[in-house]
Amino acid sequence: MQMTDLIAKKRDGGALSTEEIEFIIRGYTEGSIPDYQMSALCMAILFRGMDDRETLDLTLAMMHSGETLDLSPIRGVKADKHSTGGVGDKTSLILCPMVAACGVKIAKMSGRGLGHTGGTIDKLESFKGFVTGISEQTFFDNVNRIGIAIAGQTADLDPADKKLYALRDVTGTVPSIPLIVSSIMSKKLASGADVIVLDVKCGSGAFMKTPEQAEELARGLTRVGRLAGRKVAAVITDMDEPLGNAVGNAIEVKEAISVLRGETKGELLELCLTLGSCILTEAGLAAGDAEAREKLQAVIDDGSALRKLYELVEGQFGEAAAVYDTSLLPDAKVKLEALSEEAGFVAHIQAEQVGLVSMHLGGGRVTKDSEIDLSVGVFLHKKVGDRVERGESLGTIHAASEEKAREAAQLLRRCYSFSPDPVEKPPFIKGIVR
Amino acid sequence: MQMTDLIAKKRDGGALSTEEIEFIIRGYTEGSIPDYQMSALCMAILFRGMDDRETLDLTLAMMHSGETLDLSPIRGVKADKHSTGGVGDKTSLILCPMVAACGVKIAKMSGRGLGHTGGTIDKLESFKGFVTGISEQTFFDNVNRIGIAIAGQTADLDPADKKLYALRDVTGTVPSIPLIVSSIMSKKLASGADVIVLDVKCGSGAFMKTPEQAEELARGLTRVGRLAGRKVAAVITDMDEPLGNAVGNAIEVKEAISVLRGETKGELLELCLTLGSCILTEAGLAAGDAEAREKLQAVIDDGSALRKLYELVEGQFGEAAAVYDTSLLPDAKVKLEALSEEAGFVAHIQAEQVGLVSMHLGGGRVTKDSEIDLSVGVFLHKKVGDRVERGESLGTIHAASEEKAREAAQLLRRCYSFSPDPVEKPPFIKGIVR
Repeated sequence: MQMTDLIAKKRDGGALSTEEIEFIIRGYTEGSIPDYQMSALCMAILFRGMDDRETLDLTLAMMHSGETLDLSPIRGVKADKHSTGGVGDKTSLILCPMVAACGVKIAKMSGRGLGHTGGTIDKLESFKGFVTGISEQTFFDNVNRIGIAIAGQTADLDPADKKLYALRDVTGTVPSIPLIVSSIMSKKLASGADVIVLDVKCGSGAFMKTPEQAEELARGLTRVGRLAGRKVAAVITDMDEPLGNAVGNAIEVKEAISVLRGETKGELLELCLTLGSCILTEAGLAAGDAEAREKLQAVIDDGSALRKLYELVEGQFGEAAAVYDTSLLPDAKVKLEALSEEAGFVAHIQAEQVGLVSMHLGGGRVTKDSEIDLSVGVFLHKKVGDRVERGESLGTIHAASEEKAREAAQLLRRCYSFSPDPVEKPPFIKGIVR
Repeated sequence: MQMTDLIAKKRDGGALSTEEIEFIIRGYTEGSIPDYQMSALCMAILFRGMDDRETLDLTLAMMHSGETLDLSPIRGVKADKHSTGGVGDKTSLILCPMVAACGVKIAKMSGRGLGHTGGTIDKLESFKGFVTGISEQTFFDNVNRIGIAIAGQTADLDPADKKLYALRDVTGTVPSIPLIVSSIMSKKLASGADVIVLDVKCGSGAFMKTPEQAEELARGLTRVGRLAGRKVAAVITDMDEPLGNAVGNAIEVKEAISVLRGETKGELLELCLTLGSCILTEAGLAAGDAEAREKLQAVIDDGSALRKLYELVEGQFGEAAAVYDTSLLPDAKVKLEALSEEAGFVAHIQAEQVGLVSMHLGGGRVTKDSEIDLSVGVFLHKKVGDRVERGESLGTIHAASEEKAREAAQLLRRCYSFSPDPVEKPPFIKGIVR
């Protein structure tokens, strides 16, 4: 089998066979197929697409390029959640305790974030002493005992995706539905969960700019997941502005706790109820959405979801008391209000730019080895549709120095655009694909 | 400027600016742009195309990636010819002496062949003592004195094309009109001729399978050449079977001599008259095709074209007497008739496969350092449309051993397919693009 012929086959619109796809991924992972052939193939796939069978084969070949997690020592239904990436996305911190409190097992291996803010495990390190590198034994014990563990990824899961994603990133071959689907689903399948829910972001701050693109991706993800024998659902959500109000690390944890306490409602709670009801119904723990949402609301109302977060933190040696007393969490030295220089209705907030403000403050990683400042970030007071007067605060900057705070305030102001007329907020949940 | 952004621009259907194209070719030639980005860009170009301005910019950037020849020491109009590659293509051996005999200057730098047979300079080495590596002084002196010199390429012309062609060859990115045009024209422009004629092959044995594809390529080549300030014409010719009868090295030289003597007519002579009349009219040495063809026929009839070949060989220290006594040229030890096992009308001869017969006999180069056996090859007695009886010879195998000859005869038989009904030969000259 010659890689050149396989590139030509896809270039000319042909479908690659299972054996051909396995040959490509094996060869690329081992290094016998060079980057320059793989990038040409990715570009051909970008233009020609892949059918469901090819996408599944690619996903499975990538999944089998490394270790896969065996979650069979865990009793009950194991669920996992994935987001295509948004700014201010603290959903896992809320959703995982909620569904665990309802009886679903969460055994989550999570990578560190590389971007505007840390990833879920970085955010959890806001709890003093929290250990992400727990042993396999502790991981499985905790999930069986309290229903939840979120650990840093130690196993060599999906090396093909690591190599391929890095290549796609520098060769203009990221925006291809079958390549995105296989990248996401190969990792999720390797992580071993029975039920997988996907939060597909849509809008100017997301990779998928239109609802049509987002739905196409959602359909691709769920089809491949089901063909691979898992229960899958995808929720398409708006990412025309940051999710919720906090963008950072500890301040996102505080916002998550506020939702789990039942104090913060709105889109963030709605998203967790929607994703959670997908999980509960797919897991067979609720007959339908109405019952599922009732159960999820109940674990918030009776404090058991918040208690589950406490148990998670305690089980991984963190200062769990902070769940009930958030003043124990990291707090920035300097706080500064970013005052609006304009008046009007908020028409748009550039989500990615807000992410860059967090990055500028030191809340995100520029390279794999960067240190994150967990205390910094931005708390938005004004979201799309809100009325703003001149001199009113758009958001609070949490910074390590006055100078950084002033710069960040300036950057944050530029993220906003205003309209003289009232602005109607678009629906947050744009669709559910099952 | 970031290569990733430029790949994305082309991927999304944008046109690359002059500066962007220069940045890409400079970076790729120097090595700062890696192969994996270049191959992704080539695939994006393959799908999205390039407009005339982009193709010209790409051609010029490639041309300027290395040395360019300055032919200004040569008096008169300098012409060059390029063929997109065919089996049995000895056209230059006939055409160059013909037009030189008419007063056009031929100062040709030619690469060695890598393929079924040698290139033009390999074939010329069939003349004992012929020197392809003549000094620049001799090269210019000969062209000024006798009107013709054909030397091996010594200057570092178009290093971008060398690197890029090798990459395209293994990444499925060869069949792109703008990439083919820039590859051909950058080298031709660097070679310095005023008039360039192109023989664009079309058919199952050629890269362009259909007349439409061939015409598109011909139009692309002539447009770019003209935009670069040269006089250009392209002739689209049939390559559904090998050109002429001989496929090899010395046997192709013998066939060329036979045409120059006026003994062999047919498609090969017709092609040389057509290409030659394009050169003479573009060079201003004939008012139109009729006058040009008359002049070209005259130099065959009066022996001056053959004499010009004699002068070319003599001027480069070869045994020129062989021009008038071809028994002095290399001759194979073994000759074997490949007898037909079928009867019928020749419907098709797989040109590339006939090339492989020559290769198998040792007449072509597998790698850059292979030795060519100049004496071997195939002389076809039957061409498309000819009636063949069982046991009649399809062609004579010229081989170094009985065993090779028998194998080659077997291979040659497989190149032929027959029809019980008379077969009409398609027109050989399919079009002229000026």
